[in-house]
Amino acid sequence: MSDHPIAPVAAHEPPYYAVVFTSVHTEVDSGYGETSERLEELVKDVPGYLGMDHARTPGGLSITVGYFRDLAAIEEWRSDPEHRAAQRNGRAHWYETYTLHVAKVERSHTFQRTEN
Amino acid sequence: MSDHPIAPVAAHEPPYYAVVFTSVHTEVDSGYGETSERLEELVKDVPGYLGMDHARTPGGLSITVGYFRDLAAIEEWRSDPEHRAAQRNGRAHWYETYTLHVAKVERSHTFQRTEN
Repeated sequence: MSDHPIAPVAAHEPPYYAVVFTSVHTEVDSGYGETSERLEELVKDVPGYLGMDHARTPGGLSITVGYFRDLAAIEEWRSDPEHRAAQRNGRAHWYETYTLHVAKVERSHTFQRTEN
Repeated sequence: MSDHPIAPVAAHEPPYYAVVFTSVHTEVDSGYGETSERLEELVKDVPGYLGMDHARTPGGLSITVGYFRDLAAIEEWRSDPEHRAAQRNGRAHWYETYTLHVAKVERSHTFQRTEN
């Protein structure tokens, strides 16, 4: 999707929030890809948005983790009209099951290999 | 890997902790699979362990989220000797980069499709 090196979002100075979204998709993917790309752009405008990590095992679990400075940033994103419409579509079509965990990060750490 | 249906760990009653581990692997996978399977069994013996979600995009990001009742459970797991040896191997061989976020879950929610 992009030509920059793959890297997880690095540790920020705590406290900040991690919104962990774990899901299993249905077989209905129609509209999902476009919506997903649109939301990835849209969330960048939310003040306090710090980044997002995503991984999906083929035929298995999907995990998205969004990082936000505070609960106000999460609330602004949660109530965004386009995001809300996507949430409805998700429940109606795309997700067999999902769980959302809203969690306050108390400590974090990034490791980066240095030798070449 | 198993024949039970794929499902993310369901929401528990807060507060509990989510340990979010995001990583990019090197090309050195030797010993990783066995160690990973062994640790998945071992962590189940930690009092306060609530479950684990994992997703890995082929050629991309890996995300593991472990859920624990409290910091004492996380500390017990973190200091387990086999887990510690695996952490050393991870930094020496398996991971190009990783980030760990230790976060206290304040609210959570599970959606499960009901229609068939």
